[in-house]
Amino acid sequence: MENMMNNIYELQYAMDTFYFLVCGALVMWMAAGFAMLEAGLVRSKNTTEILTKNVALFAIACTMYLVCGYQIMYGGGYFLSGTDSVAGMTDEAVAGVLAGAKAFNEGADDAGLQYSGASDFFFQVVFVATAMSIVSGAVAERMKLWAFLIFAVVMTGFIYPMEGAWTWGGASVFGLFELNYSDYAGSGIVHMAGAAAALAGVIMLGARKGKYGPNGEVQAIPGANLPLATLGTFILWMGWFGFNGGSTLQLSGIGVANEVASVFLNTNAAASGGLIAALIVARILFGKADLTMALNGALAGLVAITAEPADPSPLLATIIGAIGGIIVVFSIVTLDKLKLDDPVGAISVHGVVGLWGVFAVLLSDADATFGGQLVGALTIFVWVFVTSLIVWGIIKAVMGIRVTEEEEYEGVDISECGMEAYPEFTKD
Amino acid sequence: MENMMNNIYELQYAMDTFYFLVCGALVMWMAAGFAMLEAGLVRSKNTTEILTKNVALFAIACTMYLVCGYQIMYGGGYFLSGTDSVAGMTDEAVAGVLAGAKAFNEGADDAGLQYSGASDFFFQVVFVATAMSIVSGAVAERMKLWAFLIFAVVMTGFIYPMEGAWTWGGASVFGLFELNYSDYAGSGIVHMAGAAAALAGVIMLGARKGKYGPNGEVQAIPGANLPLATLGTFILWMGWFGFNGGSTLQLSGIGVANEVASVFLNTNAAASGGLIAALIVARILFGKADLTMALNGALAGLVAITAEPADPSPLLATIIGAIGGIIVVFSIVTLDKLKLDDPVGAISVHGVVGLWGVFAVLLSDADATFGGQLVGALTIFVWVFVTSLIVWGIIKAVMGIRVTEEEEYEGVDISECGMEAYPEFTKD
Amino acid sequence: MENMMNNIYELQYAMDTFYFLVCGALVMWMAAGFAMLEAGLVRSKNTTEILTKNVALFAIACTMYLVCGYQIMYGGGYFLSGTDSVAGMTDEAVAGVLAGAKAFNEGADDAGLQYSGASDFFFQVVFVATAMSIVSGAVAERMKLWAFLIFAVVMTGFIYPMEGAWTWGGASVFGLFELNYSDYAGSGIVHMAGAAAALAGVIMLGARKGKYGPNGEVQAIPGANLPLATLGTFILWMGWFGFNGGSTLQLSGIGVANEVASVFLNTNAAASGGLIAALIVARILFGKADLTMALNGALAGLVAITAEPADPSPLLATIIGAIGGIIVVFSIVTLDKLKLDDPVGAISVHGVVGLWGVFAVLLSDADATFGGQLVGALTIFVWVFVTSLIVWGIIKAVMGIRVTEEEEYEGVDISECGMEAYPEFTKD
Repeated sequence: MENMMNNIYELQYAMDTFYFLVCGALVMWMAAGFAMLEAGLVRSKNTTEILTKNVALFAIACTMYLVCGYQIMYGGGYFLSGTDSVAGMTDEAVAGVLAGAKAFNEGADDAGLQYSGASDFFFQVVFVATAMSIVSGAVAERMKLWAFLIFAVVMTGFIYPMEGAWTWGGASVFGLFELNYSDYAGSGIVHMAGAAAALAGVIMLGARKGKYGPNGEVQAIPGANLPLATLGTFILWMGWFGFNGGSTLQLSGIGVANEVASVFLNTNAAASGGLIAALIVARILFGKADLTMALNGALAGLVAITAEPADPSPLLATIIGAIGGIIVVFSIVTLDKLKLDDPVGAISVHGVVGLWGVFAVLLSDADATFGGQLVGALTIFVWVFVTSLIVWGIIKAVMGIRVTEEEEYEGVDISECGMEAYPEFTKD
Repeated sequence: MENMMNNIYELQYAMDTFYFLVCGALVMWMAAGFAMLEAGLVRSKNTTEILTKNVALFAIACTMYLVCGYQIMYGGGYFLSGTDSVAGMTDEAVAGVLAGAKAFNEGADDAGLQYSGASDFFFQVVFVATAMSIVSGAVAERMKLWAFLIFAVVMTGFIYPMEGAWTWGGASVFGLFELNYSDYAGSGIVHMAGAAAALAGVIMLGARKGKYGPNGEVQAIPGANLPLATLGTFILWMGWFGFNGGSTLQLSGIGVANEVASVFLNTNAAASGGLIAALIVARILFGKADLTMALNGALAGLVAITAEPADPSPLLATIIGAIGGIIVVFSIVTLDKLKLDDPVGAISVHGVVGLWGVFAVLLSDADATFGGQLVGALTIFVWVFVTSLIVWGIIKAVMGIRVTEEEEYEGVDISECGMEAYPEFTKD
Repeated sequence: MENMMNNIYELQYAMDTFYFLVCGALVMWMAAGFAMLEAGLVRSKNTTEILTKNVALFAIACTMYLVCGYQIMYGGGYFLSGTDSVAGMTDEAVAGVLAGAKAFNEGADDAGLQYSGASDFFFQVVFVATAMSIVSGAVAERMKLWAFLIFAVVMTGFIYPMEGAWTWGGASVFGLFELNYSDYAGSGIVHMAGAAAALAGVIMLGARKGKYGPNGEVQAIPGANLPLATLGTFILWMGWFGFNGGSTLQLSGIGVANEVASVFLNTNAAASGGLIAALIVARILFGKADLTMALNGALAGLVAITAEPADPSPLLATIIGAIGGIIVVFSIVTLDKLKLDDPVGAISVHGVVGLWGVFAVLLSDADATFGGQLVGALTIFVWVFVTSLIVWGIIKAVMGIRVTEEEEYEGVDISECGMEAYPEFTKD
């Protein structure tokens, strides 16, 4: 009888582990989405470099989070050690898992979830990379490659894990938990944090040459490859099912399975609402069906629902996404006017709409409070923005963060990477 | 003891829900496949517009199916309401699920499957988008963007849900069920339906300028980006595992797990057969290894097996796919001669081969009858074609469906979207 | 009671089958990764042809493995027969599965794993395609398309299944098992095997015209589309989770779930280590952040960890990957000097680093021996290289394997496929 129950716990453990791994693979896939989106929205002469930044930041994020980030955020240093503590388990550890599963199924809240620690790490590590991916787009076409990669080391190894510790990590610094800050999958913790680091970088860097005319008027700089940008958006949309769906942290029961299913449904609904709203608003403002605004609208819908994708009804999710889609259009126009030059709109999509997402929680989660969300969002923003400013500043002082004017004019692909992205295509 | 049984039912419910969600995410990914395939097969001057149509139709499909489509097709309006009826469940509802699972496991056929309703919706909604995606390719390079999107609203909110209700929905209108119409994952219900709407649009629109020479001879209009088209085909191939595999509707037992596995295997085998057959036939007819025919052959194999992917042996599945691959080459050539100008071959792939798929069911499913398949296919085709003609006709009368000759000559990207897809690449 | 236990076994069977199918779909996706990687790294005039080879080889691999490959490798010919033996199961077969599950759960090692045979086939068949995909890149830009496809028939239907039979297949030819050859997911069996066939082809073919200057100096021939190559790398990275993760062969218990999770984590860590190491080494050697080296570094990391992704600690996995990344840079440079012209670096990534992977097993698996790994690797290499040489030789004698100089100069897209990949983009 007990043996049979243990069989059930084993299946439950395996199912929750598998669910984490599938969701983690989808979030890893978002790295490809960011790479394609950004490569499609920059000019061809800066494409190799943005691709290099994107693949390298992903690798750096995975390595830094392994070396120290996870420990800072969640404690425990066992990923440095060998087989026994990761893949294998001692008999005592297995017994502990089974006892924990029993307690959990019998309703003990503090029994903890039961799944492989390695699967949890795998899911968490791809989140770090997501936060960092947001930065690369905003500073594109003018930042030095190695300066960016050094920042990536600090951001993924220290800045993000610190604010992650204060929120998801359970370390109650600044009393965020007392304030009841609620952020399901990270509208604030991941997206706004990435945007805050990006904003600090953009302020440090200044605008691209040619972005503003002699009288300060905004000049559109079209992206070189819109099918790539569209592909990137679809990849992100797909990956987001893992991003939000995995954040339920458990699947193996009727209640949690329903919750995961609602998260998938709502994530999709919010993206759809954001896309339609941005398409219509852009049509009204600019007179055309603006594809890049539609793509940013879909991403805005996804960011907006991320802080609470489980509780809203599907229609409310559609509306939350649609409001995100409206916000993003006006935000992009406004930031352009403020001379905050963000080639891909990342600060608007992830930062401004991320903030909206943090407060949209209040529409469906009765436990969340305005004050709690406000203090939480402020804490994350101030921490990431200020530390990023300092880090960018130090890098700037030591090695510089901006390429020379000549390099910028010729394109950073040649100066930084030594190769063109499309050597046979571009017009001279 | 009963408690332990309930634990098992909980796991079963969670597993079937998760399986639905994974399959749904794969089908959602097909939207990216259609977008890349179509963007690769049109000319560069019409690429932004076809991308915009593809992302927008997906968002519209998801929203319209939420607002009214699902209700028309399956009844029940609970997606408009809030948390209680979707994510959360009352204790009575949970008890009902457990009782249903018990009855189902004990062999009661009418006990119904047990999984999250939201996961079912998520899986169904991406099917609607698939049907609509088929249309965009066929009417590419000349249809007005907003006219197309208005059609998408009606198609996804009404036309498709109606024929879906008569078949999968269980509403026995026109006696389809009495006639024993069998269509596992929708060769007819999804693919031929999409093609019927596309055919109506193509007839309304007429051919692209330049498609036919002064003496009526067919002029090839090559696609601008074949790697994109190839990527789109691979995406569709991958997504089809979810499309067909998820249509088993359950995974959590030995018999159904075997069935799902056979569906995956046969889906892959049919695509392979279709690709090889089309490649060889095109080699014989045209003297070259025609990549676009090979891609359409793979898609034809997938469409052909969709109406019955579980019953055939893998070799029969390969043959069913191969016949689809042969049909599609001749169909594309024939439609070109009939001056039905379909830039991506969607009517051939999804319509003509979809019809073949409906009848290929007879090769392995002893319960299906020729009469049943014939009446089912006719009903779907006539319904979708006639209602689509009417809707296209109304839109044409009110706002027009075709861009001006000058806009078509310059490319619809500038006139409809205000931006080029590849501003730095194309030769002037 | 027994009934309840059977319910648990049914769930276990379904979960392991589902896990196999998800992993198989991810490995199938790798075919798209190879296609995009290779299409991005060749010149635009040879792009349609490399895409055609990639889609066709996948279809051929799936068909040949169905017709005879699986039987050669694992025995049993039941895939030629119908429903009863694949999807459906007789009552006796179900009883056998349940008894086997019982024995397995009670600790009988010889009870065998319990999952759908069709899911196993689906997982295995995509491995064959992976091995063959490695070849297409190395012989790109000069090999005749139909000669390549004929080789693909023999490679996937005979050469690979034979060495697969001696290792994973359990047929103890050459005593490999006695020698304790250990290769978890196929650094040697899949990757080095593919590279051995590629090397034979490259030797037969000779270098591309223009690869070596009049004095024998190496001329760089840049790829036409680096975003595609980057996308291909991300796809391969993602698909590799299925490639390595699925090779655990079971998920449904605490121990195996932990193992699968470690495999995912280590696979990701090794790719990250390989990318960073290759980026730094290339920076030191060439003075630039070389994107193509970084991509090859990530792939090298993945190949290196493939022979033993479960046992190493995550940090050791990072280091194994990093060494792979260092090796690949030097190997590519060396092969270029040896006039072994491999346009995409496939022989270095999959062959040289595959060999490193086979020996890296010794770092964490106490049961593996240097002698066992050496004899295993030698056997695989010699078998595949020699048989490939013979097959390439026969094809060369009968129909030729290299296009004419004029065709090579004009690009094989026109001569072999009759269509350009980017008809509107390339400069004349």
